[in-house]
Amino acid sequence: MSTRIGILGYGNLGRGVEKAIALNEDQELVGVFTRRDPATVKIATEGVKVYHTDVLASMTDDIDVLIICGGSATDLPEMTPGYAALFNVIDSFDTHARIPEHFANVDAAAQKAGKVGIISVGWDPGMFSVSRLYARSILPCGQDYTFWGRGVSQGHSDAIRRIPGVLDARQYTVPVPEALEAVRSGSNPELTTRQKHTRECYVVAAEGADKAKIEEAIVTMPNYFSDYDTTVHFISQEELNRDHAGLPHGGSVIRTGTTGPDAKNTHVIEYSLKLDSNPEFTGSVLAAFARAAHRLNQEGAKGAKTIFDIAPSYLSPLSADELRAHCL
Amino acid sequence: MSTRIGILGYGNLGRGVEKAIALNEDQELVGVFTRRDPATVKIATEGVKVYHTDVLASMTDDIDVLIICGGSATDLPEMTPGYAALFNVIDSFDTHARIPEHFANVDAAAQKAGKVGIISVGWDPGMFSVSRLYARSILPCGQDYTFWGRGVSQGHSDAIRRIPGVLDARQYTVPVPEALEAVRSGSNPELTTRQKHTRECYVVAAEGADKAKIEEAIVTMPNYFSDYDTTVHFISQEELNRDHAGLPHGGSVIRTGTTGPDAKNTHVIEYSLKLDSNPEFTGSVLAAFARAAHRLNQEGAKGAKTIFDIAPSYLSPLSADELRAHCL
Repeated sequence: MSTRIGILGYGNLGRGVEKAIALNEDQELVGVFTRRDPATVKIATEGVKVYHTDVLASMTDDIDVLIICGGSATDLPEMTPGYAALFNVIDSFDTHARIPEHFANVDAAAQKAGKVGIISVGWDPGMFSVSRLYARSILPCGQDYTFWGRGVSQGHSDAIRRIPGVLDARQYTVPVPEALEAVRSGSNPELTTRQKHTRECYVVAAEGADKAKIEEAIVTMPNYFSDYDTTVHFISQEELNRDHAGLPHGGSVIRTGTTGPDAKNTHVIEYSLKLDSNPEFTGSVLAAFARAAHRLNQEGAKGAKTIFDIAPSYLSPLSADELRAHCL
Repeated sequence: MSTRIGILGYGNLGRGVEKAIALNEDQELVGVFTRRDPATVKIATEGVKVYHTDVLASMTDDIDVLIICGGSATDLPEMTPGYAALFNVIDSFDTHARIPEHFANVDAAAQKAGKVGIISVGWDPGMFSVSRLYARSILPCGQDYTFWGRGVSQGHSDAIRRIPGVLDARQYTVPVPEALEAVRSGSNPELTTRQKHTRECYVVAAEGADKAKIEEAIVTMPNYFSDYDTTVHFISQEELNRDHAGLPHGGSVIRTGTTGPDAKNTHVIEYSLKLDSNPEFTGSVLAAFARAAHRLNQEGAKGAKTIFDIAPSYLSPLSADELRAHCL
């Protein structure tokens, strides 16, 4: 079964999805849809058109799954329920606190339309969440730890860019090696925010800007930096472009737990990612779940789903027989 | 919903399942079933009876899920299809080559009886398999590596014990640190069997036995040791009992892959386990899947399943709403 996919939104994530589809032999990119003037958007896939979102509603027969690559703050809360009325949809909604509300909205639209909508797909939320769920179910008596990085945080980079005198910035979230080691040893440490991660900032300052003042504004910024040990490096725009152009990320979900009423034996479960490109990996996860959405809908499923609701076999292009014979 | 569980077989694995049930508030141990004289079997759970397997057929109304803790060579191929005609069943069948045949036999019995049978549950096959499946589906362009250990291999320990002059033995499978590091770096190395693992043997020799001959018999043993760098340590029975009584195990499933037609970016996905007790952890996985078998059957599902077919949400005692709110 081949899956015909539309990509809505062509930022970093949309480009990541496009690259993933190119590697999946059972998937075909139908088109990229944008709210901009399509003539201004140049995509990587030869022979595939860029359309204005206005035409999407007329293409319901051409698209099996629409992957919605928008922002969680304002785009996805509108777009995903809206398009779930027309298509099977996938999104990477990542505002944890608003997931129940978003799920309910997508579910209402998708149930009514007889479509499947899988929300909050990616690695966090996504693969990290499902790893936590497996680990907690297996080891009910234990504790979870999540470490992020070393990787670029867009939100923190943006926060630095908003400081007067800053031209550009890149922020790396870095797990503290000693904390990681303590957790992996099974010693179940209590760790403060400061003990788990440090923050490294690479900042391009405007000519004549007061660097000491910028540094002070960064390290004391509430929510973003004040609870962390933060280092600030001033570099040139050329250095930033040359050495910090990528969007690497990753991290580890670790659960340590004991078995038996005697709690004599300790076990450590770890799921970790080391990603050269956050958007390309996230796009690859979205593409795999597009396969699941299409297949589930073909079987008659409808409504909103999350990664927790999808049996892993739906993600693979292999048949159940092949999976049992070669993957189990 | 509470799940009433029967354990069939009371070796290391059966005891591991018993300990897991004790930590799951929504599970209740109904009884332990044995082919031995029940009077000779003392179990850990107060107030729970040991029964002869003869009475199992009369207890179909008392047991929601039967967890079958037998050997894969001869027990499970008979037992799992046999009891799937009466109960929802779980097993840890681990003879990879015979999984398709075992699945077909369990499926036929369970379909006919309207029961669910989940086979090959544990960590390998089991959590390692599902980690491979997720990783391959996300990164279709890449390579898998599996490392086992440091941990005790029962099969290899048994093979040493069959050598004349050996009274007891314990064999550890040990991943080669340099190989692990090379894989984790994303360099995609080609590794021979010898480059991936070493084998450490602790052997108790009979008085007057020819130790050089025993060592030679071990390190040259085909299939088990001849393809590995193997070290042999002769120790006393007291030392073996004192220092090697546990059954630790673990390992790592690693997939490295690239994204995009340009293959510019590399990603590393790793799932790893460090287990103080192999049977207690495996028992904990079996108990979590007993929850899934019961719930699926309540919803009307029937037939054989593997870990690939089970949506992760079925493993948790939490509701779908709770999972989305707190785990995603």
